[in-house]
Amino acid sequence: MSPREATFNESVSSLSAHGLSQRYSAVRGFTEDLCEPLFPEDCVIQSMPDASPTRWHLAHTTWFFETFVLAKAIASYKPFHPAFGFLFNSYYNAVGEQYSRPERGLLSRPRVEEIFDYRKHVDSKMQELLDDPASSLPADLLAVVEIGIHHEQQHQELILTDIKHVLWCNPLYPVYHESERESNGQTRPIEWIEYDERLHWIGHDERGFAYDNESPRHRTFTDPFQLAARLVTNEEYRDFIEEGGYQRPEYWLSAGWDLVGKRGWKAPLYWIESEGERKHFSLSGIQPLDPSAPVCHVSYFEANAYARWAGVRLPTEAEWELAAGEVPIEGNFAESGRLQPVTLPSSTSDGAPSQLFGDVWEWTTSPYTPYPGYSAVEGALGEYNGKFMCNQYVLRGGSCATPGSHVRRTYRNFFPPDARWQFSGIRLARTAESA
Amino acid sequence: MSPREATFNESVSSLSAHGLSQRYSAVRGFTEDLCEPLFPEDCVIQSMPDASPTRWHLAHTTWFFETFVLAKAIASYKPFHPAFGFLFNSYYNAVGEQYSRPERGLLSRPRVEEIFDYRKHVDSKMQELLDDPASSLPADLLAVVEIGIHHEQQHQELILTDIKHVLWCNPLYPVYHESERESNGQTRPIEWIEYDERLHWIGHDERGFAYDNESPRHRTFTDPFQLAARLVTNEEYRDFIEEGGYQRPEYWLSAGWDLVGKRGWKAPLYWIESEGERKHFSLSGIQPLDPSAPVCHVSYFEANAYARWAGVRLPTEAEWELAAGEVPIEGNFAESGRLQPVTLPSSTSDGAPSQLFGDVWEWTTSPYTPYPGYSAVEGALGEYNGKFMCNQYVLRGGSCATPGSHVRRTYRNFFPPDARWQFSGIRLARTAESA
Amino acid sequence: MSPREATFNESVSSLSAHGLSQRYSAVRGFTEDLCEPLFPEDCVIQSMPDASPTRWHLAHTTWFFETFVLAKAIASYKPFHPAFGFLFNSYYNAVGEQYSRPERGLLSRPRVEEIFDYRKHVDSKMQELLDDPASSLPADLLAVVEIGIHHEQQHQELILTDIKHVLWCNPLYPVYHESERESNGQTRPIEWIEYDERLHWIGHDERGFAYDNESPRHRTFTDPFQLAARLVTNEEYRDFIEEGGYQRPEYWLSAGWDLVGKRGWKAPLYWIESEGERKHFSLSGIQPLDPSAPVCHVSYFEANAYARWAGVRLPTEAEWELAAGEVPIEGNFAESGRLQPVTLPSSTSDGAPSQLFGDVWEWTTSPYTPYPGYSAVEGALGEYNGKFMCNQYVLRGGSCATPGSHVRRTYRNFFPPDARWQFSGIRLARTAESA
Amino acid sequence: MSPREATFNESVSSLSAHGLSQRYSAVRGFTEDLCEPLFPEDCVIQSMPDASPTRWHLAHTTWFFETFVLAKAIASYKPFHPAFGFLFNSYYNAVGEQYSRPERGLLSRPRVEEIFDYRKHVDSKMQELLDDPASSLPADLLAVVEIGIHHEQQHQELILTDIKHVLWCNPLYPVYHESERESNGQTRPIEWIEYDERLHWIGHDERGFAYDNESPRHRTFTDPFQLAARLVTNEEYRDFIEEGGYQRPEYWLSAGWDLVGKRGWKAPLYWIESEGERKHFSLSGIQPLDPSAPVCHVSYFEANAYARWAGVRLPTEAEWELAAGEVPIEGNFAESGRLQPVTLPSSTSDGAPSQLFGDVWEWTTSPYTPYPGYSAVEGALGEYNGKFMCNQYVLRGGSCATPGSHVRRTYRNFFPPDARWQFSGIRLARTAESA
Repeated sequence: MSPREATFNESVSSLSAHGLSQRYSAVRGFTEDLCEPLFPEDCVIQSMPDASPTRWHLAHTTWFFETFVLAKAIASYKPFHPAFGFLFNSYYNAVGEQYSRPERGLLSRPRVEEIFDYRKHVDSKMQELLDDPASSLPADLLAVVEIGIHHEQQHQELILTDIKHVLWCNPLYPVYHESERESNGQTRPIEWIEYDERLHWIGHDERGFAYDNESPRHRTFTDPFQLAARLVTNEEYRDFIEEGGYQRPEYWLSAGWDLVGKRGWKAPLYWIESEGERKHFSLSGIQPLDPSAPVCHVSYFEANAYARWAGVRLPTEAEWELAAGEVPIEGNFAESGRLQPVTLPSSTSDGAPSQLFGDVWEWTTSPYTPYPGYSAVEGALGEYNGKFMCNQYVLRGGSCATPGSHVRRTYRNFFPPDARWQFSGIRLARTAESA
Repeated sequence: MSPREATFNESVSSLSAHGLSQRYSAVRGFTEDLCEPLFPEDCVIQSMPDASPTRWHLAHTTWFFETFVLAKAIASYKPFHPAFGFLFNSYYNAVGEQYSRPERGLLSRPRVEEIFDYRKHVDSKMQELLDDPASSLPADLLAVVEIGIHHEQQHQELILTDIKHVLWCNPLYPVYHESERESNGQTRPIEWIEYDERLHWIGHDERGFAYDNESPRHRTFTDPFQLAARLVTNEEYRDFIEEGGYQRPEYWLSAGWDLVGKRGWKAPLYWIESEGERKHFSLSGIQPLDPSAPVCHVSYFEANAYARWAGVRLPTEAEWELAAGEVPIEGNFAESGRLQPVTLPSSTSDGAPSQLFGDVWEWTTSPYTPYPGYSAVEGALGEYNGKFMCNQYVLRGGSCATPGSHVRRTYRNFFPPDARWQFSGIRLARTAESA
Repeated sequence: MSPREATFNESVSSLSAHGLSQRYSAVRGFTEDLCEPLFPEDCVIQSMPDASPTRWHLAHTTWFFETFVLAKAIASYKPFHPAFGFLFNSYYNAVGEQYSRPERGLLSRPRVEEIFDYRKHVDSKMQELLDDPASSLPADLLAVVEIGIHHEQQHQELILTDIKHVLWCNPLYPVYHESERESNGQTRPIEWIEYDERLHWIGHDERGFAYDNESPRHRTFTDPFQLAARLVTNEEYRDFIEEGGYQRPEYWLSAGWDLVGKRGWKAPLYWIESEGERKHFSLSGIQPLDPSAPVCHVSYFEANAYARWAGVRLPTEAEWELAAGEVPIEGNFAESGRLQPVTLPSSTSDGAPSQLFGDVWEWTTSPYTPYPGYSAVEGALGEYNGKFMCNQYVLRGGSCATPGSHVRRTYRNFFPPDARWQFSGIRLARTAESA
Repeated sequence: MSPREATFNESVSSLSAHGLSQRYSAVRGFTEDLCEPLFPEDCVIQSMPDASPTRWHLAHTTWFFETFVLAKAIASYKPFHPAFGFLFNSYYNAVGEQYSRPERGLLSRPRVEEIFDYRKHVDSKMQELLDDPASSLPADLLAVVEIGIHHEQQHQELILTDIKHVLWCNPLYPVYHESERESNGQTRPIEWIEYDERLHWIGHDERGFAYDNESPRHRTFTDPFQLAARLVTNEEYRDFIEEGGYQRPEYWLSAGWDLVGKRGWKAPLYWIESEGERKHFSLSGIQPLDPSAPVCHVSYFEANAYARWAGVRLPTEAEWELAAGEVPIEGNFAESGRLQPVTLPSSTSDGAPSQLFGDVWEWTTSPYTPYPGYSAVEGALGEYNGKFMCNQYVLRGGSCATPGSHVRRTYRNFFPPDARWQFSGIRLARTAESA
């Protein structure tokens, strides 16, 4: 077994097929729970090339299990529908041609109901495989099942971020679900947590599941730095705006400044001026901005400009991972049902950074690159991560739309620097010298 | 009353409110019949900027009656929904701002069911107005009701042509409705019907309903010409293709030749090469081409190139209208349920051109311009026709997707020369000298 | 001889080869005179896809004579340079491939000097042919020489309009040539000249030279109308602007209104607001607007919107040609050296429309279509006109940048309705009924 | 003095004003030498938005001295021309607005001759300042003079790469200068040089001049690796092509694979298939490919795909800088006059990598990011580097178009991953484990 295959396989040792079956069932069910508030009309819309219709997410995650598990495990397996391989393959060239991504919103068929039938069909075959003691899936396929479950969780987040964008495009501002508003008072001054210089290890230690892009674990040297104990808030970001943040080129990367002009950016995505008041669009409709809640839906360019305006900078991913150290993976995740970032009642008591996990993905200043010694796994699944390591930045920590069990300290999310429709926010850092 | 208002009003004299009520009800019902085979998912898709989702057509035609009749006739009328004026106004600047046309496919709400509720609401108010003897709608509003009915019929055709394009974009090639194939044998040689030179009248004579662009009736001089007794067939068009029609610039207008290259045109829209055979996509799915059926879904550029290849030309709209003379308005219209052009059993017995009405709209060589003395009516409805008189060509005669009661001898349909998604075909003409 | 060939040939009977030689020499010389104020740097710039660099005009007109005369007349003729056929063919598919039009500004070689060498070479061969009594060019080639001379004159106008656009793009607003400003007082009220209804002939009568698009001469019926005795002035157009002309959709064709928004049109091309005063850019640099001079550099959309605002309309080309009747072809042409439209001292005394020829091309409401019975000549020269008969409008009368000997009463110039960089202006008409 | 200012200032201590004067004069003169083979027509063309016309480079570098030195040093200094600040500012927002970059090719004025006058004017003022002992430029302005000299050298390289692209766009393939072809035999197998893991310093040590992006010098940890002793050759790259390199997605980053399709890449820029033979376009015209010369004009995407095909990878910039260690900065630079990469006679004798400097810029796998602790200098010159740290990759070592005195071991050149018009090539690396 090559070192790269290990990344996906290692974790399986601790997972019985039966344990996987239960997780499979729970995760697949959660996807469908997320679609419960949606109507068939909602599920076909593609509001921009970067996003996909709900129906596509529902089918694509199913195709993943069908293609990479069922078709491999069952000699006589016949695809549910001969065209679905073409329609629901996202980008796996090794598996075949793909239907044009920006045109996913042109398709009304198979209908949503038919896609749920597809899910049922594949789920029943999968459960058979996982539950039947005689089936005895080989370890490498069990590993792929586990990948598929994590893959499904990634698409759960995308279902939420993509449908939020769809509803936002509608002048009626439809509500996805009703939710109570919470606020916990005002913004406190930032406390800075200090970290000494050190040569340390980052990347996944191969205990439990991880994607290949988190490996190999390797040493890196980090200069002394300080990390903000909390996230940047709406109130602080509003100050940036009001002091001319979007009018002053000196805070911006050149490519970001171009976009400010071209796209007319004046505030984070989903902020609106309504009746003289700043509000924002959430999955619960238009709401007043909570001043002390973390600012959200900013691009890397905006996060970086904010940091420069504040006289500091964003953290690198090595700094972030170092700080994540022993911090427990708890926070405001998708399961809470809030589906928006909230004000934290207080900083964590023990001097650790708060809200490191959940609420908002935190932009780092690190381009998404291969770790030293990285090479993609062989075969189609090698296309999962490696080929996207270009012109994207790493985000860390998960968001209020990420399933909690999907998040890890070493997890590397990545988006292009202009992306704003994810739940992405800002944590500040500074080098010790500039203190 | 100004001469322009007359165009829309004249016809009303012969129409009782009661008669209108019956037509209103029949026409509105036919729209909903056309949507019967569609699912909610189908009704939200916009496959290209020129086309609109079914749900938009359903709502826009309803908004037309609400805005131009109900809101004028009923002092206390409150719009069904405050945002629908913005969402479902097509292009009437005089009435207010409009939601961006190429983004009609971004909207999932109001849902299809809600739009049917909107239709029910407006229909019941309209029937009240038309049926209650006490309501006594003034003549100018009765005239607008009549326009609205014709407007609805135009959108019936667009519902069909637009959904055909939606289904075509889907690699599954879904079927709108099953239908039987008909064929009536082979292509006969073209007979040419001769017309002498003359100074004659064209345009609407103000008896019965007409759009303002058909007026004023006026004199025009036409040189002697000949008109083909039948339409160009699939078989003939295939010959054009096989003799290099799409490879030889000499047949093409310069702008058309550019499009052949840019869009890779090699055949009419909806033709496909499948298993070595030429087929076409119809509302009944993929079918073999009927060699003797009229060629359909060609642009003006293709129609014109075909005519040059054949050594002749297309007719002018004056020639077409002159030839339409006393020909009865009968043919293969939407009500037949075929929804595709068919082979005609035989030429009409009396030497008149056959299939002049129905089957396919016939491209003329006439740019869509105002008739001498034309001026648009005052107010919002003046935007109906006049402002589009630029860079479009006139088509005549109606198609298999046009309601039969919507067609007139003087009817001027118009589309840009690159449009191919309408049921548009080719009738040839030639000047007498070149005989 | 077919009727179409006649169009180009007929005129030759009256022209001796010797006469042609003198005209050839004069016209070719005038082209070079026009380039005299330009530097090599000026001659390579292409400021937009529609315009061409001066060096390209200089070479293309030369290539025309080389390809269509020298190569046909001299059996042993070898092209001056093997690549020039590819580089300087404009759009004649029958002669071969062409270098991409929008990329003409990427070429620095052959240098301007080398292109003048090319001109000298071709000119000397041409003069030999025309002057040597033994050479005896056949009539059809003499006819092509005549076409080539007119072709050269068309490009003289384009050299001026294209370089004006080049200089305009430069924030330094360079001056092409110094000229004196002339003004002749104030705008007088429009007088309207009446024309009765009639069936009349239009098109070229085959006496003297004409392009094929002016034929066949044919009958047309014209309703009674009135034509403005003079052109619309800058002052009048300024009123249109100040009364919200560019803000009110009701005056505009739909496609024009879109452009007003997309391109931010607020005034004719070349108008600028400078130090609180309206000025315009001319070939003599920035100048104050002469209120009583004809407005210039407006698109068809603007001309049409102006006319609607003024409650009237533009003339058809048949009306214009009828009015041109016996009016002498005199006016402010390129030879005057003014190169901008001027105020006319007074209306012509005899009730004929003034400034019908020269000053500005007059937009007509007639799309550029083939005359009844028109067919393009055989061979490459058949591509001269016919293939452009789509989505363009006819302009009449010549401008201050047109060589006077190039203008005819039947001359049909044509440009797309959004073109503004030609010297195009506005003459109003109205139907008699609306008087 | 802040640490950042130090970067630009430090070096000045060792430089007398007199020494600078001599370098100023030599470097400015070399720019004009490079333009000697060009004609005015060549100097105005902008062949793509990324490149600039020669005349612009000539003026912009002059504007740099005028704006950042003369205007600061001489109280009464008046700009040579009031509009040049707008026309020739590249991207310094702090200094004012800039003329649109992609439209630099629309300008013919000031003419080339006038720009040379501008250069003479500024040069004479600069020499006065530098030569007059009384002028005594303060240290910070001397530092800016030094930056300006390096800035001029950067534009010397761009003059060459941009004009190469201009001439390439011309079907005549004009020659910039004649040069002799050199070849030194065949490609030898790659030797791999080993480097142990270590924590080491990279970045500039503040001795001599450096740009701010080379600072701060800092520690980084590098795993053991091997570096190819020589560059990848044309012959090797041809093998990649012939084994389907441009047809197999598995070698490519996703964004790169998209470009292969969209732009139709099939070989490096400037390679052509001519008479059945692979040739390339050089500044000396079309030439046969030298099989053993370094491959050049490849994008990062191509370099990366080649490395994956070869089963290895590109080096990081830290690895490259570590390897550059004590290697002397010698090689085939612009001063040699070759202006194309050549075959190296033999590997350097002492086991050091050969051709590390000169010939081709070497793509590294490192995105262009700020070094830990980096912050841009205050003021306009802070825009020199920092704002471009996004979506670009670092290249190292200089090329055959780089002035030799401009290159440093710590020098970080940077271009977007799709850029191919620089002299960019491929050096391979591999992690020790995969050996």
